[in-house]
Amino acid sequence: MTRNLTVAIVGATGAVGVELIRLLEAGELPVGELRLLASARSVGKTLPFRGLLLPVDATCDGAFAGVDLAFFSAGASRSQAFAPVAVRHGATVVDNSSAFRMDPDVPLVVPEINFHAIQDRHRIIANPNCSAIILLMAVAPLRALGRIRRIIVSTYQSASGAGAAAMEELRSQTATVLAGGEARPEVFDQPIAFNLFSHNTPIGVDGYNGEETKVIEETRKILEAPDLGVNVTCVRVPVMRAHSESITVEFDDVAPSVDAVREVLAGSPGVRIVDDRVANRFPTPLEASGGHDVLVGRIRPDLSSPRAICLFAAGDQLLKGAALNAVQIAERLMPLRVAPVSV
Amino acid sequence: MTRNLTVAIVGATGAVGVELIRLLEAGELPVGELRLLASARSVGKTLPFRGLLLPVDATCDGAFAGVDLAFFSAGASRSQAFAPVAVRHGATVVDNSSAFRMDPDVPLVVPEINFHAIQDRHRIIANPNCSAIILLMAVAPLRALGRIRRIIVSTYQSASGAGAAAMEELRSQTATVLAGGEARPEVFDQPIAFNLFSHNTPIGVDGYNGEETKVIEETRKILEAPDLGVNVTCVRVPVMRAHSESITVEFDDVAPSVDAVREVLAGSPGVRIVDDRVANRFPTPLEASGGHDVLVGRIRPDLSSPRAICLFAAGDQLLKGAALNAVQIAERLMPLRVAPVSV
Repeated sequence: MTRNLTVAIVGATGAVGVELIRLLEAGELPVGELRLLASARSVGKTLPFRGLLLPVDATCDGAFAGVDLAFFSAGASRSQAFAPVAVRHGATVVDNSSAFRMDPDVPLVVPEINFHAIQDRHRIIANPNCSAIILLMAVAPLRALGRIRRIIVSTYQSASGAGAAAMEELRSQTATVLAGGEARPEVFDQPIAFNLFSHNTPIGVDGYNGEETKVIEETRKILEAPDLGVNVTCVRVPVMRAHSESITVEFDDVAPSVDAVREVLAGSPGVRIVDDRVANRFPTPLEASGGHDVLVGRIRPDLSSPRAICLFAAGDQLLKGAALNAVQIAERLMPLRVAPVSV
Repeated sequence: MTRNLTVAIVGATGAVGVELIRLLEAGELPVGELRLLASARSVGKTLPFRGLLLPVDATCDGAFAGVDLAFFSAGASRSQAFAPVAVRHGATVVDNSSAFRMDPDVPLVVPEINFHAIQDRHRIIANPNCSAIILLMAVAPLRALGRIRRIIVSTYQSASGAGAAAMEELRSQTATVLAGGEARPEVFDQPIAFNLFSHNTPIGVDGYNGEETKVIEETRKILEAPDLGVNVTCVRVPVMRAHSESITVEFDDVAPSVDAVREVLAGSPGVRIVDDRVANRFPTPLEASGGHDVLVGRIRPDLSSPRAICLFAAGDQLLKGAALNAVQIAERLMPLRVAPVSV
């Protein structure tokens, strides 16, 4: 394919960072050198890559010298500060934070849907919000069947979306409650063990939390549909690492048949249909966990509207919702950017 | 109020039965005698009531002699078999099963909404499905603000809806998984620990499961709105005993304001508003558990439709979703049926 690449991961010790390392190990990119970057308190740690233990270094300007490709997954402020540095050093940045997603000059990309949004001049590519990616993997293919006017979605979001510490809180707090103890929330601000709550992001003046606003805005940007109606409710549930979503899709005209929806989704890369009415088997977060596909099922007419159909989807939040989508962007983009090795 | 009543509970040892006993202990009905009935395998057990240990007897025809009021919560086939027997013995039956709910000559009642549906001749009163009750406690009051044309709801249903054994399976299976073991489903047919799944009731030809069909049909019957659109997705989540629901309510005309919705709900008996945008505090199943009120919050406009508003509700499945609603029916009905004590 191309010459070997020097790749950096900012936020290498986080839940998404660890998945990025694993995906690069197994993936198609010719990684010559991998630089693991994190905040000062992680310096000195090591992480395994191809049988070696690589050191974790501090994220600083000099760390990006000679980097071809940088993945950022360390929060928006870290991306704001260092993504431009990486670009100045000549790198292409795939940013998993929300820092640049709504920047009109930054493409926001799910490769199966809108890889075409990336132009030569773009040095920062934004990786969308996890709930938006999983929603759109199920919904975007249906545009082949008619114009979509409105999406109604309620989410069932896993602890992983709040990072590794939140997953550990779900584990340890659940053990405490089972032992008769009291839940003492630290990462989340209310109990997650055997509980669920409206997404823990601040609420805006319109009554919507930050996560919901991201789903609305990012859905419209990715689908290039600024007027698309998006009704969204984001809820955190006591599940480890896959998000599930209950989705209604309203079309301009009469909704397509269940068979037509099934056929289109069956032919959509990255989607796997799990829709066995007889066995009562549909997408679950447990089955989606660790897998690359977004599972889609409960494909059925909306009995309250001839224009709508209903779906239920589940996808691994750390993989297709974050690290996998980022690596897929890079795997498709980098061969176009790095000169092939001369033979 | 009235003379002392002879009350029977069929299914006394179940999760709902135990709550019925507690509510009768604390409630307004003048219970003179309480007969605890269950299946043969529970005979010989005792359950506490007012400081006494009452024996559990077998459900048989003779057990209903002299009974004024019988609560049934032992499944539809048990109700089919014995509710008519209880009626023949002169009892009023409040039936928590699905056996008679859609019978046109049986009223299906949430007392705050349609107590008027009960007429003198009715000897069997059906207690609605738990998800339908919690949904309607939040939605029915909004009819004061305009005609409702469509309800869209996704549920987050607790283990308690499948009974005490399901709650125990959630507990024990979660402990097993935390200890590194494998989930071995017995009550549910797939893992519930750190997982969720489409409701475990059979799927009909229209693609809807039994729970969803109940929500659609019972909602229309209770609201006396046979043409009401109901879009429903029922999902089981790893939560103990309260159901949560993400709800969109579409009106015929422009939706009422958030303030108007809040005002109506604030004045609705059995509803408590939990809607603190600043503190990010909204209804949770943990807060709803053990309480009598249905909690309602996330009151906000639907940004995708000027005719709709969104809500999030949570209510104790065993209480308002089952036992409490049944006792409330009886507390309001029995004084109308039993002659007052002559002084």
